[in-house]
Amino acid sequence: MRAVNFCAGPCTLPQSVLEEAQAEFVDYAGTGMSLIEMSHRSPEYDAVHNETLELVRSLFAVPDEFEVLFLQGGATLQFAMVPLNLLAGGGSAGYVVSGSWGKKALEDAAYHGDVHTAWSGSDSGFTRMPAGDEVEIRPEWQYLHVTSNETIHGIRMVDWPDADIPLVGDMSSDYLSRPIPWERFDAIYGGAQKNLGPAGLAIVFVRRSVLAETNRDLAAYLRWDIHADKNSLYNTPPVFAIYMMGKTLKWIQAQGGLAAMEAAAGARADLIYGAIDDSDGYYRSPVDPAARSLMNVVFRLPDEDSEARFISEAKAHQLLSLKGHRSVGGIRASLYNAMPMSGVEALASFMDSFR
Amino acid sequence: MRAVNFCAGPCTLPQSVLEEAQAEFVDYAGTGMSLIEMSHRSPEYDAVHNETLELVRSLFAVPDEFEVLFLQGGATLQFAMVPLNLLAGGGSAGYVVSGSWGKKALEDAAYHGDVHTAWSGSDSGFTRMPAGDEVEIRPEWQYLHVTSNETIHGIRMVDWPDADIPLVGDMSSDYLSRPIPWERFDAIYGGAQKNLGPAGLAIVFVRRSVLAETNRDLAAYLRWDIHADKNSLYNTPPVFAIYMMGKTLKWIQAQGGLAAMEAAAGARADLIYGAIDDSDGYYRSPVDPAARSLMNVVFRLPDEDSEARFISEAKAHQLLSLKGHRSVGGIRASLYNAMPMSGVEALASFMDSFR
Repeated sequence: MRAVNFCAGPCTLPQSVLEEAQAEFVDYAGTGMSLIEMSHRSPEYDAVHNETLELVRSLFAVPDEFEVLFLQGGATLQFAMVPLNLLAGGGSAGYVVSGSWGKKALEDAAYHGDVHTAWSGSDSGFTRMPAGDEVEIRPEWQYLHVTSNETIHGIRMVDWPDADIPLVGDMSSDYLSRPIPWERFDAIYGGAQKNLGPAGLAIVFVRRSVLAETNRDLAAYLRWDIHADKNSLYNTPPVFAIYMMGKTLKWIQAQGGLAAMEAAAGARADLIYGAIDDSDGYYRSPVDPAARSLMNVVFRLPDEDSEARFISEAKAHQLLSLKGHRSVGGIRASLYNAMPMSGVEALASFMDSFR
Repeated sequence: MRAVNFCAGPCTLPQSVLEEAQAEFVDYAGTGMSLIEMSHRSPEYDAVHNETLELVRSLFAVPDEFEVLFLQGGATLQFAMVPLNLLAGGGSAGYVVSGSWGKKALEDAAYHGDVHTAWSGSDSGFTRMPAGDEVEIRPEWQYLHVTSNETIHGIRMVDWPDADIPLVGDMSSDYLSRPIPWERFDAIYGGAQKNLGPAGLAIVFVRRSVLAETNRDLAAYLRWDIHADKNSLYNTPPVFAIYMMGKTLKWIQAQGGLAAMEAAAGARADLIYGAIDDSDGYYRSPVDPAARSLMNVVFRLPDEDSEARFISEAKAHQLLSLKGHRSVGGIRASLYNAMPMSGVEALASFMDSFR
């Protein structure tokens, strides 16, 4: 029986994608070998690579002014590469500290550039996002860094900050679940292992005009411009993760693309927030209703014992990985693109009966 | 029909490993989900992760004084991380430029530390390795960097340089095909996608006493000590690549471990070098016989037309990926751990009949 997997990432993938990959795992397209055994310069892999890049361009509606990079090291390596590439000339930048991820991004950037807290949600326990005019913006900053969704705290940035400077964004958990206002951004990055595929791959979008000015005094892997020039084939790419993302993107395309994913995300989240709001206070969302994440719904029960029992009884119903992040506790249901509505309905129904 | 895949990496994997992974690809161990959908903090993945770390320790015979790290970005990212971690205090180091990879390692390191050419094989077209006393060693260097096998040029370092300073080595294409003299090294790194598994994973070995002194003024992903402290789970690891390497390591263990791999590597290489040496000069090895790689056998035919015909006729016999690297041309047969002797025999026999 297929489990319903609410993990925050790596996470559930479309079953049909897994079955397709399984069927061709040992002998890819009659070549007598697995795709993962092939040269990354082979015609077969080349077709997968370029088709996947094209699918990203088309589904994300990436403007021509942006390069698309497939990199390793996750969003975490980009915490280093953003300042290494953008702040080399001694520039400075501001960071919105909206939760654990925004905080890590700032702390890491501090080793490689002159960076500042533009706003912090720590006083409110990272339960809300800033209003546009709360964010401090200094005109000399090269960029303002934002985290569009805080996976651990379960909040998302609905409105982007008012800023005359370009944004740089970690959108790991929002990829292909909401449109990107490209004109506001110089760079966007995120791991694929939430909405788009398995672990081991990050997608980075960088504005071409910015790439012309990025730091060249870095080892090759750390330079965005080299990966762009080499079509993300400067070194051996993470072949399997790119291939699986390509299949997942085709599945997304067949579902109706970004618009369908956005609608489904809204419907899934509504169902669980509805179950919370209609529980007479038994379930409680700790976050500002205006900042509720559509991807990671966090909630509490009256006490920790009930939470532990909730998690273990849910497990008996094949509703898995509902434990909140160890740093905050509680319950977290992650509802990424491949989460079927039937799974969300099963959770809502379980919440009702458990209560 | 299973192809014989002589690709230099990604490369052939044991067929039984592929079949095992295929069988459990959609539903891992009755969990109702694929391993690649699971949390990297789940008990199931945790077991895979730690078992794979233990297999590395046991098969490589890693001494307790070394940490084992599983990282992304390949050996290429380590070209940056080696000097970033080791030369932070203003130290310097020497690099043996034995081929394209040694050269890239030096060029990348130059952005992050005071590094010097300790020996270069460029005058001889990278066809030999230095004799022990040819390498310049300065006592103030923190380390001497070596590349144990140059995949493109088809040479390997048989004897390690005489040096009173520690070695740091890129051993990507030699991993688990020869013993490592651990006492000589402070750090060793390499990609898994040759002898050990698919692309998307590098293994780094670092001496614990060295880790105590590495640079802390870096973003987290770039710090070896953080990955060591977090058991290579600081951020989401490349789950699938680690899992596949684990299976490949179990296969290696069942074959008899490192000693069996070393013997098989010698036997495979002997067969192809024999076919070259017994060809009355039709096939020609461009490299110093003393430095012949056991992993990448490069050879030439009388002219480029014959080489093109050789590659295309071999392909018709399912002997694939025999084209030399684009930067050097000619023929290259890569003979990694999972290459069956029957495949090497088929190539030797084809070489004979083609001639």
